[in-house]
Amino acid sequence: MALATLVHPTGSHPASWLHPSAYPGASMDIGYYRDMARLAERGMFDLFFIADTPAARTSQLEAYARFPLFMNVFEPLTLLAALAGATTYIGLGGTASTSFFEPYNVARQFASLDHISGGRAAWNVVTSANDFAARNFGLDRLPPHGDRYERAREFVDVVRKLWDTWEDGAFLRDRESGLFFDPAKQHPVAHEGRHFRVNGALNIERVPQGQPVIIQAGASDTGREFAAETAELVFASDSTLEAGQRFYADLKGRMARHGRPPEALKVLAGLPAIVADSEQEAEDTYQTLQALIHPDVGRMRLGMDLEADLSGLPLDEPIPPERIPASANLHKAYFEHILGMIREGLTLRQLYMRYERGNRTIRGTPKQVADHMEEWFTSGAADGFMLTFSLLPRGMADFIEKVVPELQRRGLVKREWRGRTLRENVGLERPGHRRQ
Amino acid sequence: MALATLVHPTGSHPASWLHPSAYPGASMDIGYYRDMARLAERGMFDLFFIADTPAARTSQLEAYARFPLFMNVFEPLTLLAALAGATTYIGLGGTASTSFFEPYNVARQFASLDHISGGRAAWNVVTSANDFAARNFGLDRLPPHGDRYERAREFVDVVRKLWDTWEDGAFLRDRESGLFFDPAKQHPVAHEGRHFRVNGALNIERVPQGQPVIIQAGASDTGREFAAETAELVFASDSTLEAGQRFYADLKGRMARHGRPPEALKVLAGLPAIVADSEQEAEDTYQTLQALIHPDVGRMRLGMDLEADLSGLPLDEPIPPERIPASANLHKAYFEHILGMIREGLTLRQLYMRYERGNRTIRGTPKQVADHMEEWFTSGAADGFMLTFSLLPRGMADFIEKVVPELQRRGLVKREWRGRTLRENVGLERPGHRRQ
Repeated sequence: MALATLVHPTGSHPASWLHPSAYPGASMDIGYYRDMARLAERGMFDLFFIADTPAARTSQLEAYARFPLFMNVFEPLTLLAALAGATTYIGLGGTASTSFFEPYNVARQFASLDHISGGRAAWNVVTSANDFAARNFGLDRLPPHGDRYERAREFVDVVRKLWDTWEDGAFLRDRESGLFFDPAKQHPVAHEGRHFRVNGALNIERVPQGQPVIIQAGASDTGREFAAETAELVFASDSTLEAGQRFYADLKGRMARHGRPPEALKVLAGLPAIVADSEQEAEDTYQTLQALIHPDVGRMRLGMDLEADLSGLPLDEPIPPERIPASANLHKAYFEHILGMIREGLTLRQLYMRYERGNRTIRGTPKQVADHMEEWFTSGAADGFMLTFSLLPRGMADFIEKVVPELQRRGLVKREWRGRTLRENVGLERPGHRRQ
Repeated sequence: MALATLVHPTGSHPASWLHPSAYPGASMDIGYYRDMARLAERGMFDLFFIADTPAARTSQLEAYARFPLFMNVFEPLTLLAALAGATTYIGLGGTASTSFFEPYNVARQFASLDHISGGRAAWNVVTSANDFAARNFGLDRLPPHGDRYERAREFVDVVRKLWDTWEDGAFLRDRESGLFFDPAKQHPVAHEGRHFRVNGALNIERVPQGQPVIIQAGASDTGREFAAETAELVFASDSTLEAGQRFYADLKGRMARHGRPPEALKVLAGLPAIVADSEQEAEDTYQTLQALIHPDVGRMRLGMDLEADLSGLPLDEPIPPERIPASANLHKAYFEHILGMIREGLTLRQLYMRYERGNRTIRGTPKQVADHMEEWFTSGAADGFMLTFSLLPRGMADFIEKVVPELQRRGLVKREWRGRTLRENVGLERPGHRRQ
């Protein structure tokens, strides 16, 4: 199975930086990231992944000062390039938005990262989901969901064409003939679309992986169709085995109509995990963190994903129905998860204490966590996992020490690297050059 | 004096990759760049600089296949981030165009590089000078010179505002109070201009250098005024001491009206150098390289800077006057340099064999090169030098072995690093935070 990890500086828990074991300087310490990438590589993780949003909040700062998500972080491409030299095998994945960036720059920077890392780059294609980012790029607000995906499809199409500017072997570097490249092996892009006009050639040769790996995570119908068409790794966020199996089958089922075999896309189930020698110890770690969530933070986080203003509401009563929007514009899966809990009649405080973005954190022994992973992997719910750790680096170190050897004993995780590229290690074929 | 070096993979000479000592795989070998950056650092260079254009040519490929300038290169920001971990003191400078990129991304990536490198980032602000790049970004051709500079001024203004989103010390990381940052120390940008609308906050704290160093190289009147207003390092390209002194005095003279003291800007004179134990040996190296220039390449390079189509013209006759444009739209200094030679009555072949972009390559002994540098430095023509080497890494290694110790003996080049940031080493003050 493929192993990936999504890294937030001190961990994925909203109060992680407040934990006594956390290093509050983590987000601006490149040495800390280097150590963590090396740790993940020693633990046979295939992918070290950096989520991103190109904005810092400018409102609700009293809450964000206590929960500094993306308020002060390295930019992903520069960070990943810096990590390339500190690692040898692990894949390096980062997020770049199709709503605000230019295809030429994205194509070029991920291609450059693939060359710098010897074939380990992966691009997480996102359409972005907040107006704060939009306002940094000349817009008043985010375009609607459907429009963002239309632009994203065209954006990815252009990027892939740019990546195939040059055939493999176009660069001869032949002093005898005096030819550095073969002019017949350049295929410039001539793209005139609704959102982009790109007429030219990428100034970097075809990458070690053929093309960098494409990641996506959209759970909506549009998002799934887009993933079935173009994604190679998909981060899933279902909470039950049955939902995971449905998502897996649905996504793989959509691929045929885009002429893709099911194995051309790997589903990585999101898995927040706290592992300890006893279940109680894992639960204690979780509850210690939960107790550190400030009510302002709980209210704000819940409101963000419910797309509702929860300020001023009493903590120990249910949310009044008139505060709840009819439908989601941002993260549909998160929104519906919260709606489900609201229908159970929980109070605002109970909601935010129970709500987690994506999956519920699994707390358990190495055997329990390994059993969970084996079950999902062998019953058609996942090709691998995107692990998040509430506390870093401790949570990752525990997982690597306790769970990875168990998964290796079961023959589920490799003991040796299959190659030097991300594609080789997760079992994705190197794409052939598409003449354009 | 400040020492910078502009690095092309195998050297700055158009035929460098054809030289027997060159490594033709250089442009895509990150290990090669790492070694070169370390070499420059050992030689007490303050700045390792990467020029750039975001495009590969798609026409005249028969010539470009023999002179592969920017046809297959790392993207600068990812390259510099990868070099940060391999070096400790040397500044890391790269080019990013204000004509095609977004201020938020540029601000963020250079800020991230400054943090990753511990205060060594420098941004070379260019308006770009070719239509090939424009067509990769939705435009049919480059906007006119004046419009590009107007946009550039606004672009730099927005980037600098973004860099001052957070006051120094805004990030408290204080577990006792539960505050990661002080909300009062965030100052979001509210910019509504002719070219850009940016309303938000940069998601990275103020950088070790306060702001990354701003580099420029424009020689036109508009370019000089822009540099006097905003640049901290300026690459100059005058060929004679007198012209260098005039440029230096003019540029520093323009600064007062922007409220800046002359020492807030360092002029680095461009200096292509071939150094050897005897003048004849240096000359031989130069002539060996010149003899490797293919006529197609000579014709194409001259035509590019003359902004003229020279195809089909006989090599051993002067260029017919009707092929020569009345004025330059791209690099004014290069254009006028060629016009000057045309007036001497040279043939096309003589022109391209004699023409060099920017300064004439100095070929000489260590003493001759050091004398030249001392003369410019002590007579008000330069605060330092931007060295280019015809052949890399050999040319740089020769310079470091033979010239740097001589300059140190004369007290012109430091023996110890003054600090860990580029600003400290070149003597530029750390800018205070401008409340906005």
